[in-house]
Amino acid sequence: MNGIATLMKDQLALPKRLLTNYRQLGLTESDVMVLLHIHRFQSEGNDFPTPSELSDFLSINEYECSQVLRKLIQKGYLSIEQSTDEQVLNEVYSLYGLWESLVEEQGEAYRTQNEEPEQP
Amino acid sequence: MNGIATLMKDQLALPKRLLTNYRQLGLTESDVMVLLHIHRFQSEGNDFPTPSELSDFLSINEYECSQVLRKLIQKGYLSIEQSTDEQVLNEVYSLYGLWESLVEEQGEAYRTQNEEPEQP
Amino acid sequence: MNGIATLMKDQLALPKRLLTNYRQLGLTESDVMVLLHIHRFQSEGNDFPTPSELSDFLSINEYECSQVLRKLIQKGYLSIEQSTDEQVLNEVYSLYGLWESLVEEQGEAYRTQNEEPEQP
Amino acid sequence: MNGIATLMKDQLALPKRLLTNYRQLGLTESDVMVLLHIHRFQSEGNDFPTPSELSDFLSINEYECSQVLRKLIQKGYLSIEQSTDEQVLNEVYSLYGLWESLVEEQGEAYRTQNEEPEQP
Repeated sequence: MNGIATLMKDQLALPKRLLTNYRQLGLTESDVMVLLHIHRFQSEGNDFPTPSELSDFLSINEYECSQVLRKLIQKGYLSIEQSTDEQVLNEVYSLYGLWESLVEEQGEAYRTQNEEPEQP
Repeated sequence: MNGIATLMKDQLALPKRLLTNYRQLGLTESDVMVLLHIHRFQSEGNDFPTPSELSDFLSINEYECSQVLRKLIQKGYLSIEQSTDEQVLNEVYSLYGLWESLVEEQGEAYRTQNEEPEQP
Repeated sequence: MNGIATLMKDQLALPKRLLTNYRQLGLTESDVMVLLHIHRFQSEGNDFPTPSELSDFLSINEYECSQVLRKLIQKGYLSIEQSTDEQVLNEVYSLYGLWESLVEEQGEAYRTQNEEPEQP
Repeated sequence: MNGIATLMKDQLALPKRLLTNYRQLGLTESDVMVLLHIHRFQSEGNDFPTPSELSDFLSINEYECSQVLRKLIQKGYLSIEQSTDEQVLNEVYSLYGLWESLVEEQGEAYRTQNEEPEQP
């Protein structure tokens, strides 16, 4: 059985901070899964997956997926950038805002993890 | 700014199949996030995170987390094994069943993704 | 600057054991780099990179690369398998033997790491 | 046999660029392996492995390892930084320079890969 080789061949790497800090970023489990799918599509060369392509792999439908994308863009974790590939202008998603937020959040997020939310 | 180095240092690798095939395994986004957290805890040396430890990082509470763990065990994706570490007997989670299922599912899942089931 | 996003997008995951145990497997740094390049090519969809393709990225030339491949095959860490892709028969490399060896070696390798071989 | 779970648990992620571009950075296979070991030690919480700790896993000895570390620092791929951990001042290695260089090199490295060096 060749399962090990099959699993080892196609892996995705993600910062552990995404798992430990997404709640501090105001994200739900579904939001994170949408981000992980965009990250996966990009690792496979598709830099701008459509809501339809994304929802093929998710429990949420295409419309709900669009809502999540809008939320992620509003929060600055996802952005749409222009990319020039062989003289063709393309739109691509960038996760730069997400990775930046995870780095900025780090100290704080770990420190407040087991504390009560601040009272007014 | 040293953010790249910070993010690169602590990464988690997972088989892309987990993202593409979890629906075929009967799992929801929350279920996958629980599995990813167990995978992360184990990569950091904690082989048997409690429902309380897991729910610290999840939107679901400790009780709901226990329910998810029970479901994962019933489906065979998660199991509890005995481990002997320096002559102390420990219980540890094993994700062996999950990885196995992803390998078995592979051909089928990819094939049927955009197709109707074959008619006789 | 968008460097973080660029680096995060294309990553390769490998078992840490490959780094910690390759000497116990009788492998040199160059041998490991050849294995890592095969692993990388496969993660990008090229399952049977030629010695020429591999040596493009290595300090060793095509002939030396063929010698390394032969050594890896003889030791059982690399094998050539038949794969049927859309009814075309292909030869592909399998790293199954390598991953298997790393698992078998584990206990022993870690134990003997800082010890002299036992004397009678 | 539980090998899959064992291998999946302890993985290291690295940018593929490190593998494809190290020659453009003037690095040898041994140099890259030293960098990978530092990266691995850091992922396990040891931010400043000694030449002795590194050479335990390498074919080169402690002295040669120190030489490689000096070369990497001179080229700016490795640096020594001050870190304050629980009020104790520590020295830690940073791979920031390496990751930066890989991002800067990207376009150029891929473009020139199969070309002759430019003639005056």
